[in-house]
Amino acid sequence: MVAGEKYWINDPNLVEIRYKARDLTDKINALGPRDVEARTQLLKQLFGEMGEDIHVEKPIRIDYGVNIKMGSHIFINFNWTVLDCCDVTIGDRVFIGPNVSFYTAHHPLEPQERAEHIGFAEPITIGNDVWIGGNVTILPGVTIGDGCVIGAGSVVTKSIEAGMIAIGSPCKPVKKVENHGK
Amino acid sequence: MVAGEKYWINDPNLVEIRYKARDLTDKINALGPRDVEARTQLLKQLFGEMGEDIHVEKPIRIDYGVNIKMGSHIFINFNWTVLDCCDVTIGDRVFIGPNVSFYTAHHPLEPQERAEHIGFAEPITIGNDVWIGGNVTILPGVTIGDGCVIGAGSVVTKSIEAGMIAIGSPCKPVKKVENHGK
Amino acid sequence: MVAGEKYWINDPNLVEIRYKARDLTDKINALGPRDVEARTQLLKQLFGEMGEDIHVEKPIRIDYGVNIKMGSHIFINFNWTVLDCCDVTIGDRVFIGPNVSFYTAHHPLEPQERAEHIGFAEPITIGNDVWIGGNVTILPGVTIGDGCVIGAGSVVTKSIEAGMIAIGSPCKPVKKVENHGK
Repeated sequence: MVAGEKYWINDPNLVEIRYKARDLTDKINALGPRDVEARTQLLKQLFGEMGEDIHVEKPIRIDYGVNIKMGSHIFINFNWTVLDCCDVTIGDRVFIGPNVSFYTAHHPLEPQERAEHIGFAEPITIGNDVWIGGNVTILPGVTIGDGCVIGAGSVVTKSIEAGMIAIGSPCKPVKKVENHGK
Repeated sequence: MVAGEKYWINDPNLVEIRYKARDLTDKINALGPRDVEARTQLLKQLFGEMGEDIHVEKPIRIDYGVNIKMGSHIFINFNWTVLDCCDVTIGDRVFIGPNVSFYTAHHPLEPQERAEHIGFAEPITIGNDVWIGGNVTILPGVTIGDGCVIGAGSVVTKSIEAGMIAIGSPCKPVKKVENHGK
Repeated sequence: MVAGEKYWINDPNLVEIRYKARDLTDKINALGPRDVEARTQLLKQLFGEMGEDIHVEKPIRIDYGVNIKMGSHIFINFNWTVLDCCDVTIGDRVFIGPNVSFYTAHHPLEPQERAEHIGFAEPITIGNDVWIGGNVTILPGVTIGDGCVIGAGSVVTKSIEAGMIAIGSPCKPVKKVENHGK
Protein backbone atom coordinates (compact mmCIF):
# COMPACT_ATOMS: atom_id res chain seq x y z
CA MET A 1 0.00 0.00 0.00
CA VAL A 2 2.66 2.51 1.05
CA ALA A 3 4.73 1.62 -2.04
CA GLY A 4 2.02 3.09 -4.24
CA GLU A 5 0.87 -0.32 -5.54
CA LYS A 6 -2.74 -1.35 -5.79
CA TYR A 7 -4.13 -2.93 -2.63
CA TRP A 8 -7.36 -4.44 -1.36
CA ILE A 9 -9.01 -1.95 1.00
CA ASN A 10 -10.80 -4.71 2.91
CA ASP A 11 -7.63 -6.67 3.72
CA PRO A 12 -8.20 -7.73 7.36
CA ASN A 13 -4.78 -6.45 8.44
CA LEU A 14 -5.56 -3.01 7.08
CA VAL A 15 -9.04 -3.04 8.63
CA GLU A 16 -7.46 -3.75 12.02
CA ILE A 17 -4.97 -0.87 11.69
CA ARG A 18 -7.86 1.44 10.78
CA TYR A 19 -9.86 0.24 13.79
CA LYS A 20 -6.92 1.00 16.10
CA ALA A 21 -6.57 4.49 14.59
CA ARG A 22 -10.29 5.14 15.15
CA ASP A 23 -10.11 3.90 18.75
CA LEU A 24 -7.22 6.29 19.39
CA THR A 25 -8.85 9.26 17.66
CA ASP A 26 -12.05 8.63 19.66
CA LYS A 27 -9.98 8.90 22.84
CA ILE A 28 -8.17 12.03 21.62
CA ASN A 29 -11.43 13.67 20.52
CA ALA A 30 -12.93 13.04 23.99
CA LEU A 31 -10.15 14.91 25.84
CA GLY A 32 -10.61 18.41 27.21
CA PRO A 33 -8.32 21.33 26.34
CA ARG A 34 -6.25 21.00 29.52
CA ASP A 35 -5.42 17.29 28.98
CA VAL A 36 -2.18 18.21 27.26
CA GLU A 37 -0.02 15.32 28.46
CA ALA A 38 -2.68 12.63 27.83
CA ARG A 39 -3.17 14.01 24.32
CA THR A 40 0.56 13.93 23.60
CA GLN A 41 0.79 10.30 24.73
CA LEU A 42 -2.17 9.25 22.56
CA LEU A 43 -0.82 11.14 19.55
CA LYS A 44 2.50 9.29 20.00
CA GLN A 45 0.60 6.00 19.84
CA LEU A 46 -1.36 7.16 16.79
CA PHE A 47 1.41 8.56 14.58
CA GLY A 48 4.28 6.57 13.08
CA GLU A 49 6.80 9.21 14.13
CA MET A 50 6.42 12.36 16.18
CA GLY A 51 8.86 15.02 17.39
CA GLU A 52 8.47 17.52 20.23
CA ASP A 53 6.00 20.37 20.81
CA ILE A 54 3.04 19.13 18.77
CA HIS A 55 -0.28 20.91 19.34
CA VAL A 56 -3.35 19.35 17.75
CA GLU A 57 -6.86 20.78 18.19
CA LYS A 58 -9.68 18.26 18.18
CA PRO A 59 -11.44 16.72 16.46
CA ILE A 60 -9.10 14.80 14.17
CA ARG A 61 -10.07 12.11 11.63
CA ILE A 62 -7.18 9.84 10.73
CA ASP A 63 -7.32 6.71 8.55
CA TYR A 64 -4.23 4.72 9.63
CA GLY A 65 -1.98 7.01 11.68
CA VAL A 66 1.06 4.76 11.37
CA ASN A 67 2.00 6.33 8.05
CA ILE A 68 2.14 9.87 9.47
CA LYS A 69 5.65 11.11 10.27
CA MET A 70 5.71 14.44 12.06
CA GLY A 71 8.64 16.70 12.88
CA SER A 72 8.68 19.14 15.80
CA HIS A 73 6.97 22.45 16.68
CA ILE A 74 3.78 21.78 14.74
CA PHE A 75 0.41 23.44 15.27
CA ILE A 76 -2.70 21.82 13.77
CA ASN A 77 -6.07 23.51 14.17
CA PHE A 78 -9.64 22.06 14.36
CA ASN A 79 -10.87 19.22 12.14
CA TRP A 80 -7.75 17.84 10.49
CA THR A 81 -8.61 14.93 8.17
CA VAL A 82 -5.86 12.59 6.95
CA LEU A 83 -6.17 9.59 4.64
CA ASP A 84 -2.66 8.25 5.17
CA CYS A 85 -2.84 5.15 2.99
CA CYS A 86 0.65 6.23 1.97
CA ASP A 87 3.32 8.21 3.84
CA VAL A 88 2.41 11.66 5.09
CA THR A 89 5.61 13.44 6.12
CA ILE A 90 5.49 16.81 7.88
CA GLY A 91 8.58 18.91 8.61
CA ASP A 92 9.39 21.25 11.50
CA ARG A 93 7.64 24.51 12.45
CA VAL A 94 4.54 23.77 10.36
CA PHE A 95 1.19 25.56 10.89
CA ILE A 96 -1.98 23.88 9.65
CA GLY A 97 -5.25 25.86 9.76
CA PRO A 98 -8.72 24.54 10.60
CA ASN A 99 -10.57 22.09 8.34
CA VAL A 100 -7.49 21.05 6.37
CA SER A 101 -7.51 17.67 4.58
CA PHE A 102 -4.62 15.50 3.40
CA TYR A 103 -5.68 12.75 0.98
CA THR A 104 -3.07 10.22 -0.21
CA ALA A 105 -5.82 7.83 -1.41
CA HIS A 106 -6.86 7.21 -4.97
CA HIS A 107 -9.54 4.89 -6.26
CA PRO A 108 -9.37 3.47 -9.79
CA LEU A 109 -11.22 5.51 -12.41
CA GLU A 110 -12.86 2.34 -13.68
CA PRO A 111 -15.99 1.38 -11.75
CA GLN A 112 -15.32 -2.37 -11.92
CA GLU A 113 -12.04 -2.10 -10.01
CA ARG A 114 -13.52 0.45 -7.59
CA ALA A 115 -16.37 -1.92 -6.80
CA GLU A 116 -13.79 -4.57 -5.86
CA HIS A 117 -12.36 -2.15 -3.28
CA ILE A 118 -9.02 -1.76 -5.00
CA GLY A 119 -7.13 1.34 -3.91
CA PHE A 120 -3.77 2.91 -4.48
CA ALA A 121 -2.01 5.85 -2.93
CA GLU A 122 0.75 8.44 -3.34
CA PRO A 123 2.70 10.17 -0.55
CA ILE A 124 2.22 13.72 0.70
CA THR A 125 5.26 15.65 1.91
CA ILE A 126 5.21 19.00 3.72
CA GLY A 127 8.55 20.79 4.16
CA ASN A 128 9.80 22.87 7.07
CA ASP A 129 8.33 26.28 7.97
CA VAL A 130 5.17 25.76 5.93
CA TRP A 131 1.87 27.51 6.73
CA ILE A 132 -1.24 25.85 5.31
CA GLY A 133 -4.32 28.08 5.57
CA GLY A 134 -7.78 26.97 6.65
CA ASN A 135 -9.94 24.69 4.45
CA VAL A 136 -7.05 23.59 2.25
CA THR A 137 -7.27 20.18 0.53
CA ILE A 138 -4.02 18.44 -0.42
CA LEU A 139 -4.18 15.63 -2.98
CA PRO A 140 -2.10 12.46 -3.51
CA GLY A 141 1.51 12.88 -4.58
CA VAL A 142 1.84 16.54 -3.57
CA THR A 143 5.04 17.92 -2.06
CA ILE A 144 4.95 21.41 -0.55
CA GLY A 145 8.44 22.86 -0.31
CA ASP A 146 10.08 24.58 2.67
CA GLY A 147 8.70 27.97 3.67
CA CYS A 148 5.57 27.88 1.51
CA VAL A 149 2.32 29.61 2.44
CA ILE A 150 -0.83 28.01 1.00
CA GLY A 151 -3.87 30.31 0.91
CA ALA A 152 -7.13 29.39 2.65
CA GLY A 153 -9.57 27.31 0.60
CA SER A 154 -6.95 26.09 -1.90
CA VAL A 155 -7.09 22.66 -3.54
CA VAL A 156 -3.48 21.58 -4.02
CA THR A 157 -3.31 19.16 -6.96
CA LYS A 158 0.37 19.55 -7.86
CA SER A 159 3.59 20.09 -5.92
CA ILE A 160 4.58 23.62 -4.92
CA GLU A 161 8.26 24.52 -4.95
CA ALA A 162 9.95 25.95 -1.86
CA GLY A 163 9.45 29.56 -0.79
CA MET A 164 6.24 30.28 -2.67
CA ILE A 165 2.90 31.78 -1.70
CA ALA A 166 0.31 29.74 -3.58
CA ILE A 167 -3.47 29.98 -3.76
CA GLY A 168 -6.53 28.81 -5.61
CA SER A 169 -8.33 25.78 -6.93
CA PRO A 170 -6.22 24.32 -8.44
CA CYS A 171 -3.53 25.89 -6.25
CA LYS A 172 -0.82 27.82 -8.11
CA PRO A 173 2.19 29.85 -6.92
CA VAL A 174 1.52 33.59 -7.09
CA LYS A 175 4.66 35.11 -5.55
CA LYS A 176 7.77 34.38 -3.53
CA VAL A 177 7.90 34.61 0.24
CA GLU A 178 10.18 37.56 1.03
CA ASN A 179 13.47 36.63 2.67
CA HIS A 180 12.94 32.92 2.02
CA GLY A 181 16.19 31.07 2.65
CA LYS A 182 17.92 34.11 4.09
CA MET B 1 -41.35 20.19 1.10
CA VAL B 2 -40.18 17.20 -0.94
CA ALA B 3 -42.29 18.36 -3.90
CA GLY B 4 -40.09 21.43 -4.23
CA GLU B 5 -42.75 23.82 -2.92
CA LYS B 6 -42.10 26.50 -0.36
CA TYR B 7 -42.50 25.33 3.23
CA TRP B 8 -42.21 26.73 6.74
CA ILE B 9 -38.95 25.52 8.28
CA ASN B 10 -40.36 25.81 11.82
CA ASP B 11 -43.41 23.59 11.13
CA PRO B 12 -43.62 21.46 14.32
CA ASN B 13 -43.87 18.22 12.31
CA LEU B 14 -40.63 19.02 10.49
CA VAL B 15 -38.91 20.07 13.72
CA GLU B 16 -39.81 16.69 15.23
CA ILE B 17 -38.39 14.76 12.23
CA ARG B 18 -35.20 16.78 12.52
CA TYR B 19 -34.98 16.04 16.25
CA LYS B 20 -35.29 12.31 15.56
CA ALA B 21 -32.57 12.51 12.92
CA ARG B 22 -30.26 14.29 15.37
CA ASP B 23 -30.97 11.74 18.11
CA LEU B 24 -30.06 8.95 15.70
CA THR B 25 -26.93 10.66 14.38
CA ASP B 26 -25.80 11.32 17.97
CA LYS B 27 -26.08 7.57 18.62
CA ILE B 28 -24.26 6.69 15.38
CA ASN B 29 -21.50 9.23 16.06
CA ALA B 30 -20.96 7.72 19.52
CA LEU B 31 -20.28 4.18 18.20
CA GLY B 32 -16.80 2.70 17.95
CA PRO B 33 -15.34 1.33 14.71
CA ARG B 34 -16.13 -2.29 15.61
CA ASP B 35 -19.87 -1.65 16.26
CA VAL B 36 -20.71 -2.60 12.70
CA GLU B 37 -24.08 -4.28 13.30
CA ALA B 38 -25.36 -1.57 15.68
CA ARG B 39 -24.37 1.09 13.15
CA THR B 40 -26.20 -0.70 10.34
CA GLN B 41 -29.38 -0.95 12.44
CA LEU B 42 -29.28 2.76 13.33
CA LEU B 43 -28.59 3.77 9.72
CA LYS B 44 -31.64 1.72 8.67
CA GLN B 45 -33.74 3.74 11.14
CA LEU B 46 -32.24 7.00 9.92
CA PHE B 47 -32.52 6.61 6.15
CA GLY B 48 -35.74 6.34 4.17
CA GLU B 49 -34.39 3.39 2.15
CA MET B 50 -31.15 1.45 2.43
CA GLY B 51 -29.73 -1.53 0.56
CA GLU B 52 -26.96 -3.92 1.62
CA ASP B 53 -23.27 -3.39 2.39
CA ILE B 54 -23.32 0.25 3.46
CA HIS B 55 -20.20 1.56 5.20
CA VAL B 56 -20.43 5.01 6.77
CA GLU B 57 -17.57 6.60 8.70
CA LYS B 58 -18.55 8.90 11.53
CA PRO B 59 -19.33 11.63 12.16
CA ILE B 60 -22.36 12.29 9.99
CA ARG B 61 -24.66 15.34 10.06
CA ILE B 62 -28.09 14.66 8.58
CA ASP B 63 -31.06 17.03 8.52
CA TYR B 64 -34.06 14.67 8.09
CA GLY B 65 -32.77 11.24 7.06
CA VAL B 66 -36.16 10.01 5.86
CA ASN B 67 -35.61 11.59 2.44
CA ILE B 68 -32.35 9.70 1.80
CA LYS B 69 -32.71 6.61 -0.41
CA MET B 70 -29.54 4.57 -0.66
CA GLY B 71 -28.75 1.64 -2.92
CA SER B 72 -26.21 -1.08 -2.05
CA HIS B 73 -22.41 -1.34 -1.78
CA ILE B 74 -21.84 2.25 -0.74
CA PHE B 75 -18.81 3.65 1.06
CA ILE B 76 -19.04 7.06 2.74
CA ASN B 77 -16.01 8.55 4.45
CA PHE B 78 -15.68 10.97 7.44
CA ASN B 79 -17.93 13.99 7.97
CA TRP B 80 -20.76 13.53 5.47
CA THR B 81 -23.26 16.42 5.71
CA VAL B 82 -26.72 16.07 4.13
CA LEU B 83 -29.53 18.62 4.07
CA ASP B 84 -32.21 16.28 2.72
CA CYS B 85 -35.16 18.68 2.71
CA CYS B 86 -35.89 17.01 -0.62
CA ASP B 87 -35.08 13.51 -1.91
CA VAL B 88 -31.45 12.43 -1.96
CA THR B 89 -31.16 9.28 -4.06
CA ILE B 90 -27.89 7.35 -4.24
CA GLY B 91 -27.31 4.40 -6.60
CA ASP B 92 -25.21 1.25 -6.19
CA ARG B 93 -21.43 0.99 -5.82
CA VAL B 94 -20.97 4.65 -4.90
CA PHE B 95 -17.85 6.00 -3.14
CA ILE B 96 -18.09 9.28 -1.25
CA GLY B 97 -14.86 10.84 0.08
CA PRO B 98 -14.39 12.68 3.38
CA ASN B 99 -16.02 16.05 4.10
CA VAL B 100 -18.57 15.79 1.29
CA SER B 101 -21.79 17.84 1.54
CA PHE B 102 -25.15 17.35 -0.17
CA TYR B 103 -27.43 20.39 0.06
CA THR B 104 -30.98 20.17 -1.32
CA ALA B 105 -32.03 23.28 0.63
CA HIS B 106 -32.59 26.73 -0.76
CA HIS B 107 -33.62 29.86 1.06
CA PRO B 108 -35.40 32.68 -0.74
CA LEU B 109 -33.12 35.39 -2.11
CA GLU B 110 -35.36 38.04 -0.59
CA PRO B 111 -34.55 38.76 3.07
CA GLN B 112 -38.20 39.25 4.07
CA GLU B 113 -39.17 35.68 3.11
CA ARG B 114 -35.95 34.27 4.56
CA ALA B 115 -36.67 35.98 7.88
CA GLU B 116 -40.06 34.21 7.96
CA HIS B 117 -38.20 30.87 7.72
CA ILE B 118 -39.57 29.97 4.32
CA GLY B 119 -37.51 27.32 2.54
CA PHE B 120 -37.70 25.29 -0.63
CA ALA B 121 -35.67 22.42 -1.98
CA GLU B 122 -34.65 20.45 -5.07
CA PRO B 123 -33.64 16.78 -5.19
CA ILE B 124 -30.11 15.43 -5.56
CA THR B 125 -29.60 12.19 -7.49
CA ILE B 126 -26.37 10.18 -7.67
CA GLY B 127 -26.22 7.37 -10.25
CA ASN B 128 -24.54 3.96 -10.00
CA ASP B 129 -20.76 3.53 -9.90
CA VAL B 130 -20.07 7.17 -9.01
CA TRP B 131 -16.97 8.27 -7.12
CA ILE B 132 -17.23 11.65 -5.38
CA GLY B 133 -13.85 12.93 -4.17
CA GLY B 134 -13.16 14.53 -0.80
CA ASN B 135 -14.50 18.01 0.09
CA VAL B 136 -17.05 18.06 -2.74
CA THR B 137 -20.19 20.20 -2.30
CA ILE B 138 -23.32 19.22 -4.26
CA LEU B 139 -26.06 21.81 -4.65
CA PRO B 140 -29.87 21.57 -5.02
CA GLY B 141 -31.25 19.98 -8.19
CA VAL B 142 -28.01 18.27 -9.25
CA THR B 143 -28.00 14.83 -10.88
CA ILE B 144 -24.68 13.05 -11.29
CA GLY B 145 -24.91 10.36 -13.96
CA ASP B 146 -23.72 6.74 -13.77
CA GLY B 147 -19.99 6.16 -13.64
CA CYS B 148 -18.94 9.77 -13.03
CA VAL B 149 -15.86 10.77 -11.08
CA ILE B 150 -16.06 14.16 -9.33
CA GLY B 151 -12.69 15.67 -8.42
CA ALA B 152 -11.83 16.61 -4.84
CA GLY B 153 -12.85 20.11 -3.76
CA SER B 154 -15.41 20.58 -6.54
CA VAL B 155 -18.60 22.62 -6.08
CA VAL B 156 -21.24 20.93 -8.26
CA THR B 157 -23.83 23.52 -9.27
CA LYS B 158 -25.24 21.78 -12.38
CA SER B 159 -25.96 18.18 -13.36
CA ILE B 160 -23.12 16.09 -14.82
CA GLU B 161 -23.98 13.59 -17.55
CA ALA B 162 -23.05 9.92 -17.19
CA GLY B 163 -19.50 8.69 -17.69
CA MET B 164 -17.67 11.97 -17.16
CA ILE B 165 -14.74 13.04 -15.04
CA ALA B 166 -15.64 16.51 -13.76
CA ILE B 167 -13.75 18.98 -11.57
CA GLY B 168 -13.69 22.54 -10.35
CA SER B 169 -15.75 25.29 -8.81
CA PRO B 170 -18.18 25.39 -10.53
CA CYS B 171 -17.68 21.73 -11.46
CA LYS B 172 -17.42 21.00 -15.20
CA PRO B 173 -16.81 17.80 -17.18
CA VAL B 174 -13.21 17.59 -18.42
CA LYS B 175 -13.07 14.13 -20.05
CA LYS B 176 -14.84 10.81 -20.40
CA VAL B 177 -14.19 7.86 -18.11
CA GLU B 178 -12.47 5.23 -20.27
CA ASN B 179 -14.55 2.12 -20.93
CA HIS B 180 -17.69 3.71 -19.46
CA GLY B 181 -20.71 1.58 -20.34
CA LYS B 182 -18.60 -1.26 -21.78
CA MET C 1 -4.94 41.31 19.73
CA VAL C 2 -8.37 42.72 18.91
CA ALA C 3 -6.79 46.03 17.83
CA GLY C 4 -5.09 44.21 14.95
CA GLU C 5 -1.62 44.45 16.50
CA LYS C 6 0.81 41.56 16.65
CA TYR C 7 0.41 39.36 19.72
CA TRP C 8 1.98 36.25 21.25
CA ILE C 9 -0.36 33.30 20.69
CA ASN C 10 0.97 31.47 23.76
CA ASP C 11 0.29 34.37 26.18
CA PRO C 12 -1.10 32.58 29.28
CA ASN C 13 -4.11 34.90 29.46
CA LEU C 14 -5.08 34.06 25.88
CA VAL C 15 -4.50 30.35 26.47
CA GLU C 16 -6.91 30.48 29.41
CA ILE C 17 -9.62 32.23 27.37
CA ARG C 18 -9.23 29.58 24.67
CA TYR C 19 -9.49 26.80 27.28
CA LYS C 20 -12.75 28.29 28.58
CA ALA C 21 -14.14 28.50 25.04
CA ARG C 22 -13.25 24.85 24.43
CA ASP C 23 -14.84 23.77 27.73
CA LEU C 24 -18.04 25.58 26.74
CA THR C 25 -18.08 24.23 23.18
CA ASP C 26 -17.54 20.70 24.53
CA LYS C 27 -20.66 21.17 26.67
CA ILE C 28 -22.65 22.62 23.78
CA ASN C 29 -21.54 19.85 21.42
CA ALA C 30 -22.68 17.23 23.94
CA LEU C 31 -26.27 18.52 24.11
CA GLY C 32 -29.16 16.81 22.35
CA PRO C 33 -31.46 18.59 19.89
CA ARG C 34 -34.20 19.18 22.48
CA ASP C 35 -31.87 20.91 25.00
CA VAL C 36 -32.81 24.31 23.62
CA GLU C 37 -32.71 26.33 26.86
CA ALA C 38 -29.44 24.79 28.09
CA ARG C 39 -27.86 25.52 24.72
CA THR C 40 -29.00 29.15 24.80
CA GLN C 41 -27.53 29.63 28.27
CA LEU C 42 -24.18 28.13 27.26
CA LEU C 43 -24.06 30.19 24.06
CA LYS C 44 -24.65 33.32 26.16
CA GLN C 45 -21.61 32.39 28.28
CA LEU C 46 -19.55 31.69 25.15
CA PHE C 47 -20.27 34.76 23.04
CA GLY C 48 -19.32 38.34 23.92
CA GLU C 49 -22.80 39.58 22.98
CA MET C 50 -25.91 37.74 21.88
CA GLY C 51 -29.45 38.84 21.01
CA GLU C 52 -32.65 36.81 20.94
CA ASP C 53 -33.73 33.80 18.87
CA ILE C 54 -30.32 32.28 18.07
CA HIS C 55 -30.32 28.72 16.69
CA VAL C 56 -26.95 26.99 16.42
CA GLU C 57 -26.58 23.40 15.19
CA LYS C 58 -23.73 21.42 16.70
CA PRO C 59 -20.89 20.89 16.48
CA ILE C 60 -19.24 24.30 16.72
CA ARG C 61 -15.52 25.06 16.97
CA ILE C 62 -14.79 28.47 18.46
CA ASP C 63 -11.37 29.91 19.35
CA TYR C 64 -12.17 32.61 21.93
CA GLY C 65 -15.92 33.27 21.86
CA VAL C 66 -15.66 36.56 23.75
CA ASN C 67 -14.96 38.45 20.52
CA ILE C 68 -18.17 37.26 18.82
CA LYS C 69 -21.02 39.78 18.90
CA MET C 70 -24.28 38.38 17.55
CA GLY C 71 -27.53 40.18 16.79
CA SER C 72 -30.95 38.50 16.88
CA HIS C 73 -32.83 35.96 14.75
CA ILE C 74 -29.76 34.06 13.56
CA PHE C 75 -29.64 30.50 12.24
CA ILE C 76 -26.29 28.70 12.06
CA ASN C 77 -26.10 25.20 10.63
CA PHE C 78 -23.72 22.26 11.38
CA ASN C 79 -19.96 22.66 11.88
CA TRP C 80 -19.44 26.40 12.25
CA THR C 81 -15.75 27.22 12.80
CA VAL C 82 -14.71 30.64 14.10
CA LEU C 83 -11.22 31.95 14.80
CA ASP C 84 -12.26 35.12 16.61
CA CYS C 85 -8.85 36.50 17.47
CA CYS C 86 -10.43 39.79 16.47
CA ASP C 87 -14.06 40.97 16.55
CA VAL C 88 -16.63 38.93 14.66
CA THR C 89 -19.83 40.98 14.42
CA ILE C 90 -23.02 39.44 13.03
CA GLY C 91 -26.20 41.44 12.34
CA ASP C 92 -29.87 40.47 12.58
CA ARG C 93 -31.74 37.87 10.53
CA VAL C 94 -28.57 36.12 9.32
CA PHE C 95 -28.54 32.56 7.91
CA ILE C 96 -25.27 30.62 7.94
CA GLY C 97 -25.15 27.27 6.11
CA PRO C 98 -23.31 24.12 7.19
CA ASN C 99 -19.50 23.92 7.30
CA VAL C 100 -18.96 27.68 7.20
CA SER C 101 -15.69 29.11 8.55
CA PHE C 102 -14.85 32.61 9.78
CA TYR C 103 -11.11 33.24 10.12
CA THR C 104 -9.90 36.56 11.57
CA ALA C 105 -6.43 35.12 12.21
CA HIS C 106 -3.30 35.79 10.24
CA HIS C 107 0.16 34.43 10.78
CA PRO C 108 3.23 36.34 9.57
CA LEU C 109 4.45 35.35 6.10
CA GLU C 110 7.97 35.09 7.44
CA PRO C 111 8.74 31.70 9.00
CA GLN C 112 10.92 33.13 11.77
CA GLU C 113 8.09 35.20 13.23
CA ARG C 114 5.60 32.36 12.72
CA ALA C 115 7.84 30.00 14.63
CA GLU C 116 7.79 32.45 17.56
CA HIS C 117 3.97 32.14 17.61
CA ILE C 118 3.34 35.75 16.66
CA GLY C 119 -0.15 36.33 15.27
CA PHE C 120 -2.28 39.23 14.17
CA ALA C 121 -5.91 39.54 13.19
CA GLU C 122 -8.51 41.61 11.35
CA PRO C 123 -12.23 41.84 12.15
CA ILE C 124 -15.06 40.16 10.24
CA THR C 125 -18.40 41.96 9.98
CA ILE C 126 -21.63 40.47 8.65
CA GLY C 127 -24.54 42.87 8.03
CA ASN C 128 -28.26 42.34 8.54
CA ASP C 129 -30.31 39.97 6.39
CA VAL C 130 -27.28 38.11 5.03
CA TRP C 131 -27.44 34.50 3.82
CA ILE C 132 -24.10 32.67 3.73
CA GLY C 133 -24.30 29.36 1.83
CA GLY C 134 -22.74 26.08 2.91
CA ASN C 135 -18.95 25.54 2.92
CA VAL C 136 -18.14 29.26 2.66
CA THR C 137 -14.81 30.48 4.06
CA ILE C 138 -14.55 34.11 5.18
CA LEU C 139 -11.09 35.62 5.59
CA PRO C 140 -9.65 38.34 7.87
CA GLY C 141 -10.87 41.90 7.35
CA VAL C 142 -13.96 41.00 5.31
CA THR C 143 -17.22 42.94 5.67
CA ILE C 144 -20.33 41.50 4.04
CA GLY C 145 -22.96 44.22 3.55
CA ASP C 146 -26.67 44.08 4.43
CA GLY C 147 -28.83 41.73 2.38
CA CYS C 148 -26.00 39.86 0.61
CA VAL C 149 -26.23 36.24 -0.49
CA ILE C 150 -22.90 34.37 -0.63
CA GLY C 151 -22.95 31.25 -2.81
CA ALA C 152 -22.02 27.83 -1.41
CA GLY C 153 -18.34 26.95 -1.51
CA SER C 154 -17.14 30.54 -1.89
CA VAL C 155 -13.87 31.80 -0.42
CA VAL C 156 -14.48 35.44 0.55
CA THR C 157 -11.16 37.29 0.47
CA LYS C 158 -12.48 40.86 0.05
CA SER C 159 -15.48 42.80 1.36
CA ILE C 160 -18.79 42.53 -0.52
CA GLU C 161 -20.97 45.64 -0.72
CA ALA C 162 -24.60 45.55 0.45
CA GLY C 163 -27.33 43.93 -1.63
CA MET C 164 -25.15 41.70 -3.81
CA ILE C 165 -25.23 38.03 -4.71
CA ALA C 166 -21.60 36.93 -4.75
CA ILE C 167 -19.96 33.59 -5.54
CA GLY C 168 -16.68 31.89 -6.27
CA SER C 169 -13.12 31.48 -5.09
CA PRO C 170 -12.19 34.29 -4.73
CA CYS C 171 -15.78 35.42 -4.13
CA LYS C 172 -17.01 38.19 -6.43
CA PRO C 173 -20.38 39.97 -6.77
CA VAL C 174 -22.34 38.66 -9.77
CA LYS C 175 -25.67 40.49 -9.49
CA LYS C 176 -27.86 42.55 -7.22
CA VAL C 177 -30.47 41.05 -4.91
CA GLU C 178 -33.87 42.12 -6.32
CA ASN C 179 -35.75 44.57 -4.12
CA HIS C 180 -32.75 45.13 -1.86
CA GLY C 181 -33.41 48.14 0.36
CA LYS C 182 -37.04 48.48 -0.73
